[in-house]
Amino acid sequence: MTDPLLAGDPLLTVLREIVGHRHVLTDPGTRRAYEVDWTGRFQGQARAVVRPGSTDEVAAVLRACRAAGAPVVPQGGNTGLVGGGVPLHGEILLSLRRLDGLDDVDRAAGQVTVGAGATLAAVQAHAAAAGWAFGVDLGARDSATIGGMVATNAGGTRLLRYGPMRHQVLGLEAVLSDGRVLRRLSGLLKDNTGYDLAGLVTGSEGTLAVVTRVRLRLVAPRPRRAVAVLGLASVERAVEIATALRVDLDALEAVEAFFDDGLDLVVERLGLSPPLRCAHPVYLLVECAEPQAGPDPLDALVAALAPLGLGDDDVAAGLDPAGRARLWRLREGHTEAINALGGEIGAPHKLDVTLPAARLAEFTTRVREVVAAIAPDARTFLFGHLADGNVHVNVVGLAPEDERVDDAVLRLVVSLGGSISAEHGIGTAKARWLALDRSEAELATFAAIREALDPTGVLNPSVLVWA
Amino acid sequence: MTDPLLAGDPLLTVLREIVGHRHVLTDPGTRRAYEVDWTGRFQGQARAVVRPGSTDEVAAVLRACRAAGAPVVPQGGNTGLVGGGVPLHGEILLSLRRLDGLDDVDRAAGQVTVGAGATLAAVQAHAAAAGWAFGVDLGARDSATIGGMVATNAGGTRLLRYGPMRHQVLGLEAVLSDGRVLRRLSGLLKDNTGYDLAGLVTGSEGTLAVVTRVRLRLVAPRPRRAVAVLGLASVERAVEIATALRVDLDALEAVEAFFDDGLDLVVERLGLSPPLRCAHPVYLLVECAEPQAGPDPLDALVAALAPLGLGDDDVAAGLDPAGRARLWRLREGHTEAINALGGEIGAPHKLDVTLPAARLAEFTTRVREVVAAIAPDARTFLFGHLADGNVHVNVVGLAPEDERVDDAVLRLVVSLGGSISAEHGIGTAKARWLALDRSEAELATFAAIREALDPTGVLNPSVLVWA
Repeated sequence: MTDPLLAGDPLLTVLREIVGHRHVLTDPGTRRAYEVDWTGRFQGQARAVVRPGSTDEVAAVLRACRAAGAPVVPQGGNTGLVGGGVPLHGEILLSLRRLDGLDDVDRAAGQVTVGAGATLAAVQAHAAAAGWAFGVDLGARDSATIGGMVATNAGGTRLLRYGPMRHQVLGLEAVLSDGRVLRRLSGLLKDNTGYDLAGLVTGSEGTLAVVTRVRLRLVAPRPRRAVAVLGLASVERAVEIATALRVDLDALEAVEAFFDDGLDLVVERLGLSPPLRCAHPVYLLVECAEPQAGPDPLDALVAALAPLGLGDDDVAAGLDPAGRARLWRLREGHTEAINALGGEIGAPHKLDVTLPAARLAEFTTRVREVVAAIAPDARTFLFGHLADGNVHVNVVGLAPEDERVDDAVLRLVVSLGGSISAEHGIGTAKARWLALDRSEAELATFAAIREALDPTGVLNPSVLVWA
Repeated sequence: MTDPLLAGDPLLTVLREIVGHRHVLTDPGTRRAYEVDWTGRFQGQARAVVRPGSTDEVAAVLRACRAAGAPVVPQGGNTGLVGGGVPLHGEILLSLRRLDGLDDVDRAAGQVTVGAGATLAAVQAHAAAAGWAFGVDLGARDSATIGGMVATNAGGTRLLRYGPMRHQVLGLEAVLSDGRVLRRLSGLLKDNTGYDLAGLVTGSEGTLAVVTRVRLRLVAPRPRRAVAVLGLASVERAVEIATALRVDLDALEAVEAFFDDGLDLVVERLGLSPPLRCAHPVYLLVECAEPQAGPDPLDALVAALAPLGLGDDDVAAGLDPAGRARLWRLREGHTEAINALGGEIGAPHKLDVTLPAARLAEFTTRVREVVAAIAPDARTFLFGHLADGNVHVNVVGLAPEDERVDDAVLRLVVSLGGSISAEHGIGTAKARWLALDRSEAELATFAAIREALDPTGVLNPSVLVWA
């Protein structure tokens, strides 16, 4: 059913002409999936959901919205965590999911051009079928789209080896708010002909241009893998080991961390077995990977761990795919287990932050104290990508609108020289803290660039703003 | 001797107060080294050479120049090849070489903060002394500065593994033309808090901000190395081999190419021995590298070459440092040998371009035809970083001001889907061709960004402009 209030909206008439009637969604039930984020924390109402099927349609939609003074929120797979992709104030919701085309893999170059709406999992499978792999992986792979991952400069579990999403983007097609199209998809590895527009749009959270197609770098596949979980006495020790492995273990692909309380929750909620006979305060999950023709990654892992003085009871290794998946499940299951707990005592506040390596240990202690001082009954879970300094702070048992804990944690992060957003972005959720983390000169430069590219403020106007 | 014409220049009086008398150079003889590039092709006259000793002094110099309406050309090691760092129209030459400080290496993070004036060689040695390495290497390492390498997004011989300079920059301090300082030096690997200003300034050729300090990513050292030169029948075959090695040879660090005529010139001019018993049309130099604790890179190289059907006479291997250096000298000696020839018959026109892998072979044939049609007596040498698609086209025997060959070669590159600048930048030399390579929307976006960051046009006003 079309919402009768919107039936006479002249902008929607224009948009229907551009993308076709059935791709302008106004029925509240149909819109709902686009209007609320997957955590349920961020939601609003869209003037309409518009689903263009081509770059030209995206350009025409943006021109029409700009002419009508109608703000636009671009959305990919709607897996964001900072309220950057849902309409909060009656914006036009521009869904890019129909742009899910996959061009043939350029096997000689090790590259592929894909539509913004292609999911990460689709790109991974497409690359694999051509004998290549993609350098970014993350838990939401089945829903997260490449366009959204570009817009947020996604990180994930392999950043250590391959860098963030920005380092995979060899070319971009993106539409400016006035409908002009920036297009550079040739995928040249070396191309110093002006400013890095692809890199600038990457991570700009839909505020500078709408990504429509992406030329991606592929990497050599590394099918031979070994995973170990190490039980450790302290975060200091975990950081020390991560540093040693980064220098000595060339096959290193991931160093993830979690803690005893998080492990207990995962084991209980998901019905899993603990990885080691005895409990340890901190756990590292280490993954090594080698190409088909390479040496055995387990040999390298064992050799790298040997001088570290770990006991047999401190190490669990996953050798076959099932064993590796079992260990990864302990880490990746944190989100699910914490959300389940949140369903009972209040949705988790999720704060994604980075600390300098030298301050990680101090942070993991002090953040629990900071939360306890404000909310003694809340439960704090920490996990993350340790070698990157990236900690996901999840606090369960807070009222959704109570931001005192968020505020205190983010202030602690900044006081320790960290970043208030590691890989999720600022969105609308963290906008009020951006000025804590960034200088006046930086904020003014952000604003000047935004004004230069989107002078009328059509694109995601509530995102990446600060007071 | 101070130039008497400049003695009364009021701007210079202010600049002397900022940086001290002895760091404002007005004597023509002293200025000369800053006013001509190392190829001798680009030269002009500076109003003065100013050598600030701190970020604050850089900021004060820029404020003074902006107030006086005096354009500024920033300069690092003056090793650029596109006339982007020399004063052509009486600008203030801002030399950053005194900012050559090296902070202690952060061993846990594998990072270091250095001044813009530090040379690449100094950073390499500094990293090595702390058990780390730097991911970019290039021939001009003893003179090229980190600031200049950031400003031009330098590439070099290891881009295949570590990416361009932009991927090494984890943080930046840079001064805007109004003296405000952008500073983000914490070196966080994950930091999605606004636009990527560091990435934007990288490669902007001194037009957006003056780089003063840089936080660099370091990489695990790879001291165990093996080098081979392969003699091949065609460029098609070379591209095919480069692709196969990229997929199968994890230790791969460089794939460089040169041709029979270039090799003959190098062998003759530098008094070297040819690498193989018989001549071949094309040569690939392949380098593998492994960390100290890794496997023998020669084993991996031999295993990767085995299925390629090369004969014993087609491969020369460098096993020890002297043997490796001898093979590298054949490739790196091209610049010296060509410049020496140029000294006799006319300085080389150097065009640094990238082609898509699929068009490389066609380009190497057609570029020689294109040059011969315009300048039958000129000699064309090609060499470069084959796995990146980057070809250095050197044409010797042309008049310095005759740009017909440059024009024809760059048009050929664009017609084949390539880039008119791979790693040297646009500078002043290639400005007239930028609009060939970039769309109106891209050029307008460059201009808008530049206007946003340097509204009065103080910074490098002749660089990265187009008609």
